[in-house]
Amino acid sequence: MFSGLSAFPLTPMQHGVIDETAFIGLIQRLADAGVDSIGALGSTGNYAYLTRKERASIAQLSVKHAGETPVIIGISALSIREVLALAEDAQEAGASAVLLAPMSYQKLSEDEVFGLYKVVTRALSVPLCVYDNPGTTHFEFSDELHGRIAELPSIGSIKIPGVPAAPDVAKERVERLRALIPSRVTIGVSGDPLAAVGLNAGCEAWYSVIGGLFPQTALAITRAIQAGDSQEALRISERLAPLWGLFSQHGGSLRVVATAAELQGLAASPSLPLPLRGLEGEDRQGLARLLDELQLT
Amino acid sequence: MFSGLSAFPLTPMQHGVIDETAFIGLIQRLADAGVDSIGALGSTGNYAYLTRKERASIAQLSVKHAGETPVIIGISALSIREVLALAEDAQEAGASAVLLAPMSYQKLSEDEVFGLYKVVTRALSVPLCVYDNPGTTHFEFSDELHGRIAELPSIGSIKIPGVPAAPDVAKERVERLRALIPSRVTIGVSGDPLAAVGLNAGCEAWYSVIGGLFPQTALAITRAIQAGDSQEALRISERLAPLWGLFSQHGGSLRVVATAAELQGLAASPSLPLPLRGLEGEDRQGLARLLDELQLT
Repeated sequence: MFSGLSAFPLTPMQHGVIDETAFIGLIQRLADAGVDSIGALGSTGNYAYLTRKERASIAQLSVKHAGETPVIIGISALSIREVLALAEDAQEAGASAVLLAPMSYQKLSEDEVFGLYKVVTRALSVPLCVYDNPGTTHFEFSDELHGRIAELPSIGSIKIPGVPAAPDVAKERVERLRALIPSRVTIGVSGDPLAAVGLNAGCEAWYSVIGGLFPQTALAITRAIQAGDSQEALRISERLAPLWGLFSQHGGSLRVVATAAELQGLAASPSLPLPLRGLEGEDRQGLARLLDELQLT
Repeated sequence: MFSGLSAFPLTPMQHGVIDETAFIGLIQRLADAGVDSIGALGSTGNYAYLTRKERASIAQLSVKHAGETPVIIGISALSIREVLALAEDAQEAGASAVLLAPMSYQKLSEDEVFGLYKVVTRALSVPLCVYDNPGTTHFEFSDELHGRIAELPSIGSIKIPGVPAAPDVAKERVERLRALIPSRVTIGVSGDPLAAVGLNAGCEAWYSVIGGLFPQTALAITRAIQAGDSQEALRISERLAPLWGLFSQHGGSLRVVATAAELQGLAASPSLPLPLRGLEGEDRQGLARLLDELQLT
């Protein structure tokens, strides 16, 4: 489950509530495309902006409409109490795995983060993917901490925030982490712009944002690498360079991908939970032109 | 209401639920001491780790037990929907004012933050204090943005994160902000170690963490400055230097003050919501010795 393409769909909103029809559409699109797993309620799924009840409902809808595709559900929250409640909801919904980030308000210590994973893995009957995303959690994992956590039962994968751009440096980075964790734990890259580099460097999975909206495109990159054709993977990824440029210009992938979903008719506009806003004006028109040109699927 | 000493109490937990008896004790202690206002559900009150229901209950208990002391209730949350719901709960409970930080998961833009304050102030019938705390929100206000927000109706104060240590630089900093906001909006300093410097530099209020546990001590500093005796205020603050040292050593004031409350018998141990942990072992014993020596009230 923690290998190949794991696609992370948006959770589109409409008038302040979840747009269930749009969400089901996204899930079916991913299952039809044949992604290796679906990661609902990640950062792209706006988990942090939803209530427990909404998250339970998204977990249920995901499992129901994913068919045979395994579903990973994000259970991150600021308090351990809430994480445990969300874990229960996800397991009851039939999730195949859960994803947990050390979300923070007060800056967390290494001991506090280790304590979080220790308490939560004890309560789980499905595997857990450690979600390392300092850009949103403001917690920096050391490789040593990853090693300690990866020894806990139920840990199945580590979602790393990205890899260095230079292929040999990326390979060294993945190997350094690999040496500290059990072989049963996979390493998955996120940060779409360098995903092809990360897969080439030895990451077994790609936890993908564009995979949640354009699964065929992300699958083409993933399958090329799995077939040993890394040149083809890099070629497809480089064709998307203008999209990667927009990600850095707009503070990450979320606002760009949500606006793309709206422009493609896969979500109503606006689809982000306030205070977040999608691209407007000239930025939005530029994205529309780019999508016309790239014809992603 | 937005001047003098505003004391921010902890929200003590016990076995995963709010310790209401301990919380009521803290509120009564503040009211008895004669603080100028009580700021419940600030960062020190662990608002980010509590459910909406728990926060409504804390708002009600605060107003009920504060007597004549005005109560400011923190209504910060990641989504605007939740902030509006919390504002309604706080107003229904009888809060005299609310406190709102641009809490973030995805990094926020200036326009998104302005939009947050615009939507929320429209819905309010009590004044709002803008809570500027980049250490926990990861949003940096520009003075220009403070100026734009301060023009909105219902804005009564700005809680700034701190001031520079040098008195003349602190004065310049406060005056630069003062020049951009209407005179009806007060400026309040937080960051206890430099509060005396901030009050001396022209801040009208001190939004105080130690004031929530040791109100007499914080009042002595505040009243000395109000009486024109800034030397006395600085003398008291300097006596607390070892405490300020522990704040920087333990990633902020929260873990130190929560442990101090436990050591003083004002909260059960552990009182913080997991994954947060108070001081342990030698650190805890050192704090106990310091509190014995300082005899704060």
